[in-house]
Amino acid sequence: MKAPARRIERPVVARKAVVLLSGGLDSAVALYIAKEEGYDCHCLLFDYGQRHKKEIDCARLIARRAGAKLHIVKFKLPWKGSSLLDKKERLPVDRTVEDINKNIPSTYVPSRNTIFLSMAGSLAETICAEKIFIGAHYEDSSGYPDCRKDYLKAFSKVIKLGTKAGVEGALRLEFPLIDKSKSGIIKTGKRLGVPIELTWSCYKGGKTPCGRCDSCILRAKGFKEAGLKDPVMR
Amino acid sequence: MKAPARRIERPVVARKAVVLLSGGLDSAVALYIAKEEGYDCHCLLFDYGQRHKKEIDCARLIARRAGAKLHIVKFKLPWKGSSLLDKKERLPVDRTVEDINKNIPSTYVPSRNTIFLSMAGSLAETICAEKIFIGAHYEDSSGYPDCRKDYLKAFSKVIKLGTKAGVEGALRLEFPLIDKSKSGIIKTGKRLGVPIELTWSCYKGGKTPCGRCDSCILRAKGFKEAGLKDPVMR
Repeated sequence: MKAPARRIERPVVARKAVVLLSGGLDSAVALYIAKEEGYDCHCLLFDYGQRHKKEIDCARLIARRAGAKLHIVKFKLPWKGSSLLDKKERLPVDRTVEDINKNIPSTYVPSRNTIFLSMAGSLAETICAEKIFIGAHYEDSSGYPDCRKDYLKAFSKVIKLGTKAGVEGALRLEFPLIDKSKSGIIKTGKRLGVPIELTWSCYKGGKTPCGRCDSCILRAKGFKEAGLKDPVMR
Repeated sequence: MKAPARRIERPVVARKAVVLLSGGLDSAVALYIAKEEGYDCHCLLFDYGQRHKKEIDCARLIARRAGAKLHIVKFKLPWKGSSLLDKKERLPVDRTVEDINKNIPSTYVPSRNTIFLSMAGSLAETICAEKIFIGAHYEDSSGYPDCRKDYLKAFSKVIKLGTKAGVEGALRLEFPLIDKSKSGIIKTGKRLGVPIELTWSCYKGGKTPCGRCDSCILRAKGFKEAGLKDPVMR
């Protein structure tokens, strides 16, 4: 009789994770965190009628660079409700960080993270992933309610109770950036080798970032505080 | 000076509610409950690659009969994960009610109610609705985890924390059928004048209900217990 095989700590087939990818900086860092944890990453990207397709192109490049799989879901809500979905609405520009974080702005897309996470739950169950990663964080997130920790905890419970995998204790939600500042996220990204030059944060889809929308302003603040130069700004 | 006007109990502009409508019996009853409460009902229907389009046609007829508005969202997930989405998979047939309620069956669509509710949240915020109605109930619901009361309570919290309207206390989720049996739902539908003859429960899209799938079996049990004849069965 042969001696019993040594216990293998890591399974031969890599465990899977679903990562919400937007083309922006935060979700790219979340992807590299999942990668560092050894996951076979399945990125989930949405083509939902956003103002421009540039972030979709960026997300494709980021997923490819990370060696991750990419799933794209296309849908269009027959209502708008956000200046990010309606080109006729004007985007707020040149606001101070204090003003950006004070009220929920017109760029808030009703229920967006809930829609994205619900579809991530569906993919995760189907491919037997054990985690869903979302790069949400609250500081410098424009005051969006669906970026708060309490909200993400509530959604964790929805996964735990409302999916077969969750009920079986085989699936959970991770939000590793929730307590980080933008500068902290940038530093983490640097350490993990995130291709920051491929990320796109600007709400407009120009050739270069506008530097004036809320997202550009918060990104610039993050790089300044991190003492780093943003590779997408020339 | 004129005497002050009498306090009007009901606002001049009817309050709005979003109702998830599937073409089935339960959601039709939920719609008529919302109607009875005086809501201007906005039905939300999904064309998401289900096995047949019959339930979509039925939902259209039900919404029209109820005098409700109808919003249709079309999306297709690039993964399947359910025999209700994959025509190549065989549907379970001729099972006993005990067997149906024992395990989560292949007809379970991963995260379905979460996807539907997330989009309902988005519509509700956009049109300033104050309630979302879902006709979920657990008894005789094939053991789907996303039909349980605990799950719906958890989702209520997601709405409360993750939407602008929820944070402001202006939107909440109602699940008026959750504790009812199928026969109780049928009786309520009768009382409210629900056009039961327009509802479609069968998982197959034939000319008449198959009478053998889980959904047909649970519906037949409900009518039997209610002591009523199902108008869709000839």
